[in-house]
Amino acid sequence: MATRDGFYFDNGTAALQHGLKCAGAISPPNNITGKETQPYDVIIVGAGYAGLTACRDLCIAGYNVLLLEARDRIGGRTYTAEVDGHLYEMGGTWVHWNQPHVYREMSRYDLTALLPSHVESSSPNYCATSFEGKHQNVDQMKLHAMTEKAFKMLCDVDGKSGREVLPYPHNPHHNPKAKHWEQMSVAQRLDQIKAALTGDELAALQAHLSSICGIDMDKAGLFDVLRWWALGGYTMDGLYETGDQFKIPTGQSNFARCFFEESLQSHHLKYSFNTVVTSIQDQGNRVIVNRTWSAKRVICAVPLNVLRKVAFEPALSPSKMAATRPGNINHGAKVHLEASSSALRSWSCASWPPTRVCHGSGDGLTPDGNTHIVCFGSNKDFLRPEQDAQDFAADCQKLQDMDIRKTVWHNWSKDPFSEGSWCMFQPNFSFQHLKALQQRAGNILFANSDWALGWRGFIDGAIERGGRAAKDVSSELDTFRKPAKI
Amino acid sequence: MATRDGFYFDNGTAALQHGLKCAGAISPPNNITGKETQPYDVIIVGAGYAGLTACRDLCIAGYNVLLLEARDRIGGRTYTAEVDGHLYEMGGTWVHWNQPHVYREMSRYDLTALLPSHVESSSPNYCATSFEGKHQNVDQMKLHAMTEKAFKMLCDVDGKSGREVLPYPHNPHHNPKAKHWEQMSVAQRLDQIKAALTGDELAALQAHLSSICGIDMDKAGLFDVLRWWALGGYTMDGLYETGDQFKIPTGQSNFARCFFEESLQSHHLKYSFNTVVTSIQDQGNRVIVNRTWSAKRVICAVPLNVLRKVAFEPALSPSKMAATRPGNINHGAKVHLEASSSALRSWSCASWPPTRVCHGSGDGLTPDGNTHIVCFGSNKDFLRPEQDAQDFAADCQKLQDMDIRKTVWHNWSKDPFSEGSWCMFQPNFSFQHLKALQQRAGNILFANSDWALGWRGFIDGAIERGGRAAKDVSSELDTFRKPAKI
Repeated sequence: MATRDGFYFDNGTAALQHGLKCAGAISPPNNITGKETQPYDVIIVGAGYAGLTACRDLCIAGYNVLLLEARDRIGGRTYTAEVDGHLYEMGGTWVHWNQPHVYREMSRYDLTALLPSHVESSSPNYCATSFEGKHQNVDQMKLHAMTEKAFKMLCDVDGKSGREVLPYPHNPHHNPKAKHWEQMSVAQRLDQIKAALTGDELAALQAHLSSICGIDMDKAGLFDVLRWWALGGYTMDGLYETGDQFKIPTGQSNFARCFFEESLQSHHLKYSFNTVVTSIQDQGNRVIVNRTWSAKRVICAVPLNVLRKVAFEPALSPSKMAATRPGNINHGAKVHLEASSSALRSWSCASWPPTRVCHGSGDGLTPDGNTHIVCFGSNKDFLRPEQDAQDFAADCQKLQDMDIRKTVWHNWSKDPFSEGSWCMFQPNFSFQHLKALQQRAGNILFANSDWALGWRGFIDGAIERGGRAAKDVSSELDTFRKPAKI
Repeated sequence: MATRDGFYFDNGTAALQHGLKCAGAISPPNNITGKETQPYDVIIVGAGYAGLTACRDLCIAGYNVLLLEARDRIGGRTYTAEVDGHLYEMGGTWVHWNQPHVYREMSRYDLTALLPSHVESSSPNYCATSFEGKHQNVDQMKLHAMTEKAFKMLCDVDGKSGREVLPYPHNPHHNPKAKHWEQMSVAQRLDQIKAALTGDELAALQAHLSSICGIDMDKAGLFDVLRWWALGGYTMDGLYETGDQFKIPTGQSNFARCFFEESLQSHHLKYSFNTVVTSIQDQGNRVIVNRTWSAKRVICAVPLNVLRKVAFEPALSPSKMAATRPGNINHGAKVHLEASSSALRSWSCASWPPTRVCHGSGDGLTPDGNTHIVCFGSNKDFLRPEQDAQDFAADCQKLQDMDIRKTVWHNWSKDPFSEGSWCMFQPNFSFQHLKALQQRAGNILFANSDWALGWRGFIDGAIERGGRAAKDVSSELDTFRKPAKI
């Protein structure tokens, strides 16, 4: 099976392929016969992890569910492409046993064997840096110490490594004092600490922050960086181990299929892919989607930046609408390279100011014995699929002489069904909008990682929100059920 | 509602009360009419968190479930007693967002607000120590540094803080090299490192280890200590923050009720408390429990040390039977004290060799403004309820002059339905027995925290096992279901 999504550029043949082999592509693309009894119990809009989790929970609870998805595949901003026998995670990738919602699912589906991304080896394990235009290969341990010092200084907003300001990372607004920091941009915080850092330390930190935030430092909210820091146990090592190290060996799309297939096995799932939802009308006693399907409840699981493309009746509350602009500000790019030989297995790179690439590192070997390198970069010049890959690869080659065989990527920023990468907020956004984003509107509930409490922007956050929405819906609909005969 | 479980000794009146107010006590104690259609889909034996999770998952999936429990309450080795308006966690207590299975449930039930147990205050925050007979009040920061140094040395079995031996704490047997350490007792490992420690450092470490293991150091397996260490992120602070700090403010019994009540609301739950299961016969096409009830599947959720009290037909496999002796070796005691005034709010104590108490610390204030102190101790002399509390309190008073108003406790070791505290294994046990304990026997599945993969012995581990068993059962029974009419 293949999805229309994703690009693959072969440097040998200079051929560009749009659409990749993917276990998340669903065939047949719908199982609707037209004879279904309506209203459905629940219509779910969006088959990312939030929608899939809600779908699975409601299907196994015996509710009749219709799942609608604009793409030809499940997974939303997470899917696995297979190119020449190698798996590339095109979006959300890394998971960890300290991410509670996703790990509970991995545990339940017996998918807890993990594959580390970044390993030490006897290969060159320096970091190719470009800091303020100066190229240098830096020992990774040395760069790690520099970055860690700077990162810790950034996040030590309270003399307690951020623990006082964010004591509960899954309850980000617990301490009202956090609001002070929540109004600050990353750039403003950098101004406060930069006198205590060397130029290289500051550049190393900004290269990392740039790959985390996917936007300029003056637009990125400090609070989201603090949140990641807190989720990682208030250390940089904890953050990268929890959020950037362990993959599911068989791929995210394989994991996502577990949710979809369990839903199907319940015999309660009807679905339709390639189906863009443009209207959701709550008529009080039922909700009508695209003037075609009706349900008692709708769970809208589309990303924040896509919400405004759906015509809601009644209109979304002003507080929710206000949150859709600017919404998720992360327009960072993720690009996979295959470089000849295994030599770069433990290599990494960091660049500040970023050209197109701001951070990259070896992520295993392909079946051909070449190195798989995963890179994150600025997306501002990422406009034309044909040109993107070559420009991006060229910027990587400025950092490290390498023979690039393949480039594999998805342009999340220009994707009409995501319009951005993992969710990051601008300053002064979370306290103002997070609650509004989580709120339901009558019979319409909203479930997406973009407004999760804990691992917002991660797969974990999607499952958190999907599970909560399903629980709320089933608690309500349950009251109409009849006792079973026992 | 009150449970028969638990003891409360009032020092003012010298009155001993057996049985305490508890939100986990279920009334009426059964809802069986005798007219139920048999076989049930599933009979679940044991209403601790493993049994409750399996019960909840299967009930909401529409299976007809019969839940049988020997006690008059839910929760197993976890329940909350209320005495004079204050909540005492009699068994399993602390939870954390890095415990994935339990946190997913807290998130789903919207119970993520947490209450810290041990806080710094302006009150005396020394640790009253008795190390090798020498009494001393030691500054807690100083003691912390001593204990941390020793603990780190204990667990640094690979020069990588245990990360090489136990890279995946939820997959404890991943590295075969772990087997070497798995065969070692804590005492043997202490012999390897003690030359590098002062007497006080060694004593401080052993006081902590004693409260973790609940048994003599020569009988406790090192591997379980390494496992806790790894689960806590390979640091002592991580371990205590994850496993010993955050409580559910409304109590564990309130949390456990969420599972029970959601099961009830499904209309698929029949239950009977005060019902000791003595026989489980798998007849191939169905399973008969206590020669009375029949089901397609049974999930046996009783603790490891109670397994041998159930007559299984066919008999349990030799590998599983072998694991029941010595089984869970943890016979540690947990005792709550109420001490006059708030002065001991930040106090702690540590004792090695332990008298009855080996470790204790302030755990908040009671409504009367007195200090709630939670203590862990050796259970070897913990034989007579009437005497226990006074002996234990007397040992605490040797460490710190305090006016004890109340003592509240449960004797888990002598409890016929637990025969031990949270599960710890002896040396050479995990590699040999863990897999056998997890294995099903025909139509009988086994779910208990005592053989969890990750947080074994914790609430998290119980939910892990209960969820997996329910998943396995529903995958099997699902194939007989008819398609819904949609």
